[in-house]
Amino acid sequence: MAVVEGLTLLSEALAAGLRIEAVYVHDGVALDVPAGVPVRTVRPGAFEGIASTVSPQPVVAVVAVPRRQLADLGSPTLVVVAAGVADPGNLGTIIRSAEAAGADAVVATAGSVDVWSPKVVRASAGAVFHLPVIDGVALDDLVGLGLPLLGAVAEGGVDHDLVPLTDPVAIVVGNEARGLPPGLALDGLVTVRHQGRAESLNVAMAATVLLFEAARQRRRGGESPPRTDRSPTRVARR
Amino acid sequence: MAVVEGLTLLSEALAAGLRIEAVYVHDGVALDVPAGVPVRTVRPGAFEGIASTVSPQPVVAVVAVPRRQLADLGSPTLVVVAAGVADPGNLGTIIRSAEAAGADAVVATAGSVDVWSPKVVRASAGAVFHLPVIDGVALDDLVGLGLPLLGAVAEGGVDHDLVPLTDPVAIVVGNEARGLPPGLALDGLVTVRHQGRAESLNVAMAATVLLFEAARQRRRGGESPPRTDRSPTRVARR
Repeated sequence: MAVVEGLTLLSEALAAGLRIEAVYVHDGVALDVPAGVPVRTVRPGAFEGIASTVSPQPVVAVVAVPRRQLADLGSPTLVVVAAGVADPGNLGTIIRSAEAAGADAVVATAGSVDVWSPKVVRASAGAVFHLPVIDGVALDDLVGLGLPLLGAVAEGGVDHDLVPLTDPVAIVVGNEARGLPPGLALDGLVTVRHQGRAESLNVAMAATVLLFEAARQRRRGGESPPRTDRSPTRVARR
Repeated sequence: MAVVEGLTLLSEALAAGLRIEAVYVHDGVALDVPAGVPVRTVRPGAFEGIASTVSPQPVVAVVAVPRRQLADLGSPTLVVVAAGVADPGNLGTIIRSAEAAGADAVVATAGSVDVWSPKVVRASAGAVFHLPVIDGVALDDLVGLGLPLLGAVAEGGVDHDLVPLTDPVAIVVGNEARGLPPGLALDGLVTVRHQGRAESLNVAMAATVLLFEAARQRRRGGESPPRTDRSPTRVARR
């Protein structure tokens, strides 16, 4: 079960075809939900103790979430593994970026924050309903993905734009403070090349850059941007 | 003036050489600040009304922030313009990404959230102290950058990995709900190519992808990742 706050996220859960167990709504708020979904009216303020936002939404829904296994993924070609990501905003952003970059799934290890917590759901902007997400996976079971594991490290890996990312791969990101889990057998290391201070990228930003670099390489087949003298001033306007 | 919460951000402000007007610290917290910085002791709980975090830090500092003009930038080659970005977390992330991608500056228009608000400073992880940031700029004055203005749009622009970004350029991102300001004369439009739903990228993620694509193109000079049969499994481990 996941607790979903707000009309926007409830709409995303419905659009993804998830089963809504119940909807709780402030007295007086008009709500259009499919037949068969129980709607219960509560007095305004009733959510203040349970909702996670500072400004509680007038709608809270309880949603049945799909419990998938690694074996359900078939033959994925691009997966993100969150190995100990602790901050719900970071995990939600990673899931959102994974969907946008066209990844097949996000896998969260047992040491990561609950993917179905309200803050993760919100930070994912509903992507968690649309993309296959598998949580609570043990490190030893990641081999079941059948993919090489490419660990993202803050320094010492191969530059992200020099690592070939066109072949099937799982990109593994770690904990905000401790990095990748020590017991994990990786097949390679990648570092998002960046300037500025050492702390200048967080795990969600790094995952976003890596995912879109993988998408770019796969879309362009290694092709470069045109080396013409076109400058952005000559790019056609709509 | 900016109000800076927490020891980490205070350290970043000091590392950037900013002048600290005053430090307010919980009674009993040991603090090492340079000579001449006035430290005032407050009772625990005193920050609860003024601090922006849910869990108030034991240290709050008032920092003198540099007020720069567009003319101070010299001849920048990569700038991000936040044209009406309203969410402090988004603007802070944009500034953080700009520093990490090696941009020369961030310019915020008069319609954007205050770059020195505590939430922006925190989301920037202190990058706002290290990168030149110019705020309160009128749309008509952006011409003073001397750069072509490339507007980021959710759809209809040239794919981000097909736009040449090696020449000097200002990437312009708009408001979370309304997009780019209608009165702004742009030289081109770019769209971060993505899959999934229309809403699957927010402004901070889009800016991050665009900034790192510009950095990639400039670093590699249009060179592609090696087209070998190397897979990540054969990338050297450290």
